[in-house]
Amino acid sequence: VKRLAEGRVAVVGLGLMGGSLAGALRGRCRAVVGVARRTETIEAALARGLVDRGTADLASGVRQADVVILATPARAILHTLDEIGPLLPEGCLLMDLGSTKAQIVARMAALPGHVQPLGGHPMCGKEVSGIEAADPALYQGHIFVLTPLARTSEAALVQGCALVEAIGGRPLILPPERHDRLVAVVSHLPYLLACALVGTAEATASIDPLVWGVAASGFRDTSRLAASDVTMMLDILLTNREPVLEALEDCAGQLRDLARLVDSGDEGGLRDALAAVRERRTEIGNPKPET
Amino acid sequence: VKRLAEGRVAVVGLGLMGGSLAGALRGRCRAVVGVARRTETIEAALARGLVDRGTADLASGVRQADVVILATPARAILHTLDEIGPLLPEGCLLMDLGSTKAQIVARMAALPGHVQPLGGHPMCGKEVSGIEAADPALYQGHIFVLTPLARTSEAALVQGCALVEAIGGRPLILPPERHDRLVAVVSHLPYLLACALVGTAEATASIDPLVWGVAASGFRDTSRLAASDVTMMLDILLTNREPVLEALEDCAGQLRDLARLVDSGDEGGLRDALAAVRERRTEIGNPKPET
Repeated sequence: VKRLAEGRVAVVGLGLMGGSLAGALRGRCRAVVGVARRTETIEAALARGLVDRGTADLASGVRQADVVILATPARAILHTLDEIGPLLPEGCLLMDLGSTKAQIVARMAALPGHVQPLGGHPMCGKEVSGIEAADPALYQGHIFVLTPLARTSEAALVQGCALVEAIGGRPLILPPERHDRLVAVVSHLPYLLACALVGTAEATASIDPLVWGVAASGFRDTSRLAASDVTMMLDILLTNREPVLEALEDCAGQLRDLARLVDSGDEGGLRDALAAVRERRTEIGNPKPET
Repeated sequence: VKRLAEGRVAVVGLGLMGGSLAGALRGRCRAVVGVARRTETIEAALARGLVDRGTADLASGVRQADVVILATPARAILHTLDEIGPLLPEGCLLMDLGSTKAQIVARMAALPGHVQPLGGHPMCGKEVSGIEAADPALYQGHIFVLTPLARTSEAALVQGCALVEAIGGRPLILPPERHDRLVAVVSHLPYLLACALVGTAEATASIDPLVWGVAASGFRDTSRLAASDVTMMLDILLTNREPVLEALEDCAGQLRDLARLVDSGDEGGLRDALAAVRERRTEIGNPKPET
């Protein structure tokens, strides 16, 4: 295991997350190689100075890498994990940025023994996607979950933490299942609520199109996540089905409780419920406009 | 009916909305009188230059007013409407900023004949409340719904529109019931979804407190409205029960549809649903960071 500054890093997938990561790592290691299917993506990454070199060929992109980071949507990561093992050099650290971890880490366990696997998930993003939206500052100050396997060496984990810190992230080590249950509530559920809100407004618009005209900041904030990249979210939902369904069920129960209080006109009960939620939300705060 | 520049305006209630309105009107009319129960509120409004004069006495505050605007939560407006009629001078325009309109407009219909009533609801706000949060620019560029009664004169409606334009708002004339159905979807439903999201996270936190530690910008945006003022929201929900319950039911149906697609692993159906919602949400855009 080399020090990051001396290592070659390959980033597979140059969308918002991969492009931002490449840009954040460039200059902090020996070289950053970007791997992407489309020539235009590679050209854009080179033009924006996010990578030192780019290629559409996975094998040549990772051949000399000390660290490889898979930065595609979750199901593309699963697919790449099936074929990448034999392409990697001895002792290579293989990380990923997949938004769900249990299935990916299970697939990593089947990698050949000469590879050091380490699951990862940075807790940041934007509702826009693609290399055009890439921003090397994207990870600054944000939690970056790492999910080591039983076979991950201590040295590989230390290297993973160093990489996270090099891009300004805050490493947080978690078991993959725990990660997946947490993000189902704090990330996947908000997305689905945003989708349901837009869906409800759309249904209302078929009766009264003015609904879009009167939608103000509250609607925009609450529905912002509905503009997230579809393939990324589809992969997330389909690789985290049970925790997502559980979160949806819990939330449906919360909504039923609120509806019951409104329906019955139970002023005291409703006030208590809204006050408790307000107190908690105010505690969390809005530390800075995150992107 | 006097021109606004020559009129005396009384604002009853000096919280976020009333304080901002007073500040926006000051200098654009002959005088702005603020009416508030608490002495500290009046002092703060005077100190911040939001009003020309302040009083805790409703009768003396409105006695010489050409325009009176009720800017308290909805149920306090209903209560004030029961007693304010005899206190108002001949031909006085009586407006309100209540977030729901059907009940308030019905109560306005019972006002004595010498008063000109006009319902109003500015489509803006913040999740913070109180005179400290007041901002004369709050109404700039935002829709301001006006709900005239059958008895409202054309001259009174013109004066109401002039007042809205004077504070930078965009007047939109709507029947009260239509307004209430629309805001149930674009404003009250997002609030309840935010509450249910915080409630779900709170329930999760009792099992795994780390839930707050990994909540990122997506969670914060989607749950922001849960920090709204409790009395204001309580009044809104209790004076708009039927449209709110209808919106909740529609949204629960949307969530059930999404859960069914996730549960069945229907990739094509799920992709279509998410793509349709994304397209619509992207169309709406995020024109400017609204406050």
